[in-house]
Amino acid sequence: NDKLKIFSLNSNESLAREVAEEIGRPLGKCSVNRFSDGEVQINIEESIRGCDVFIIQSTSAPVNENLMELLIMVDAVKRASARTINVVMPYYGYARQDRKARAREPITAKLVANLLETAGANRVIALDLHAPQIQGFFDILIDHLVAVPILSDYFKDKEINNEELVIVSPDHGGVTRARKMADRLKAPIAIIDKRRPRPNVAEVMNIVGNVEGKTAILIDDIIDTAGTITIAANALVESGAKEVYACCTHPVLSGPAIERIDNSKIKELVITNSIELSDDKHSQKIKELSVAPLLADAIIRVFENKSVSTLFN
Amino acid sequence: NDKLKIFSLNSNESLAREVAEEIGRPLGKCSVNRFSDGEVQINIEESIRGCDVFIIQSTSAPVNENLMELLIMVDAVKRASARTINVVMPYYGYARQDRKARAREPITAKLVANLLETAGANRVIALDLHAPQIQGFFDILIDHLVAVPILSDYFKDKEINNEELVIVSPDHGGVTRARKMADRLKAPIAIIDKRRPRPNVAEVMNIVGNVEGKTAILIDDIIDTAGTITIAANALVESGAKEVYACCTHPVLSGPAIERIDNSKIKELVITNSIELSDDKHSQKIKELSVAPLLADAIIRVFENKSVSTLFN
Ligand SMILES: Nc1ncnc2c1ncn2[C@@H]1O[C@H](COP(=O)(O)O)[C@@H](O)[C@H]1O
Ligand SMILES: Nc1ncnc2c1ncn2[C@@H]1O[C@H](COP(=O)(O)O)[C@@H](O)[C@H]1O
Repeated sequence: NDKLKIFSLNSNESLAREVAEEIGRPLGKCSVNRFSDGEVQINIEESIRGCDVFIIQSTSAPVNENLMELLIMVDAVKRASARTINVVMPYYGYARQDRKARAREPITAKLVANLLETAGANRVIALDLHAPQIQGFFDILIDHLVAVPILSDYFKDKEINNEELVIVSPDHGGVTRARKMADRLKAPIAIIDKRRPRPNVAEVMNIVGNVEGKTAILIDDIIDTAGTITIAANALVESGAKEVYACCTHPVLSGPAIERIDNSKIKELVITNSIELSDDKHSQKIKELSVAPLLADAIIRVFENKSVSTLFN
Repeated sequence: NDKLKIFSLNSNESLAREVAEEIGRPLGKCSVNRFSDGEVQINIEESIRGCDVFIIQSTSAPVNENLMELLIMVDAVKRASARTINVVMPYYGYARQDRKARAREPITAKLVANLLETAGANRVIALDLHAPQIQGFFDILIDHLVAVPILSDYFKDKEINNEELVIVSPDHGGVTRARKMADRLKAPIAIIDKRRPRPNVAEVMNIVGNVEGKTAILIDDIIDTAGTITIAANALVESGAKEVYACCTHPVLSGPAIERIDNSKIKELVITNSIELSDDKHSQKIKELSVAPLLADAIIRVFENKSVSTLFN
């Protein structure tokens, strides 16, 4: 067991602490600082020779700082003769740049995969990738965990009559995710069906499915500026929903997100700690669930060479 | 000639503009912005199919932002079917992390080389790398330009009697550079020879060479916090130097640098625009020289498939 080393970088230290506690191992000793000119300075302060090293880092904002910390740490771990280097990314930044939506755009999600491999990672443990296809961007092993069970269990505990429940996808892309949650809560689904009748005409918001008199739970993978989700929540209420919850795995919550949520019809926003909320991102409406037990389980299974696939659904 | 495309990213736009003007080509059209969550958003706004693309970007502070911009741009250029991708880095960040000075340190200068290759760069044009060995970190082509001629010519124009001149290296590592400048100015050299007699005892500053009554020119590649250079300048004056100039290629000038320079015995600090000085880094003592003609010359030679090696000395 002393061959298992868990290191935290700067994006998500409290989650990393929780994971280490779950596993019953201390966090590895290392200093991750900045030189005077802003360059990342890393020093690993204990031997990791022959060890299976797990580095926990979300590439959330500041994404470029956090990503470079991660790449440099992987390089340092490699040069310190670790046996395997496992990168645990509760949030995978740049996941939305996963295709050329327009000509001459980068595909940064693929670039990031290549950079991690080049630095020397042997395995990536990710959580709710924006598109599951990103798994195919890697030639190294990747485990793809999902948070739907954690989010679903929270709502199960509310003991809402499932006849009164409806799980809502805020767009076409998220229907599979909504379906998974609906299965767990034995509830029907609905879809917010935005469309633009003609170019340069306002979008029409249509709800496919029955929400009248129901408790609606909006589910998404990422909530960023919260535009989509708050508009969807208000549309649900207008269509007769009794109350609206929202939930997501990754609370990016940039720009006007908190203000929008506070001013919306959303009763409660349930998130995970895949991204650590900065101090300016507080709202009474936010309820945070921990993915630490899930990550700890995955790390132990990888370390013990057991299947991680039971954590996929 | 319309197959030559020059793009600027955000680190060094005014230098890039100058280079493009020297060459007589407009800068390529692209937008390099940030999404709301801080992720780099790049869109190339003109066709570069079949072109030889030159991307000008110093990985100066904020180094991680500038490096990620560069990597993502290389990815975008690659996917836009450029013929060759040439990365022009007037300043190569992380160059000082070029070896394991202690156990379990990263070698980030090598990592950066690998990242550039992975992203898709075909060639790198660099200027005064902290160690020339960094050239060997690349498997792709690298041209290594030097700024000593530019710095030397500036002092030549001052028409200081070369009997009164001495070129000083602020440490042992920089003697070769001082020698090159001394050759051009037909002057002797001196070396600041710091040593620590015993552990935990203050360093002794010894000057090897004759500086008495002379105009001393300190030369270094990087001036960062300006500790070394200002202490050296004051030591030179104490040893009888008549006046002290300092010069460097890369004005990192972080932390207390400006204050130290202003309070030092340095009469003038001559730098290049390899790093764009931020607005808070102004000093009456600073004189900036442009490397734009040098970079323009190198770009044209590479584009026309001519030797760049005449620009090396
Ligand atoms: N960090 C980001 N913030 C906002 N939009 C993004 C970001 N990264 C990529 N995108 C855009 O979001 C779109 C992908 O989102 P989606 O349709 O939900 O998969 C692409 O067209 C990207 O241009
Ligand atoms: N950005 C930086 N700022 C200050 N020191 C650094 C930086 N990067 C690396 N170093 C250290 O500087 C030393 C190399 O400097 P040098 O001896 O001048 O080649 C190494 O021991 C590094 O640990």
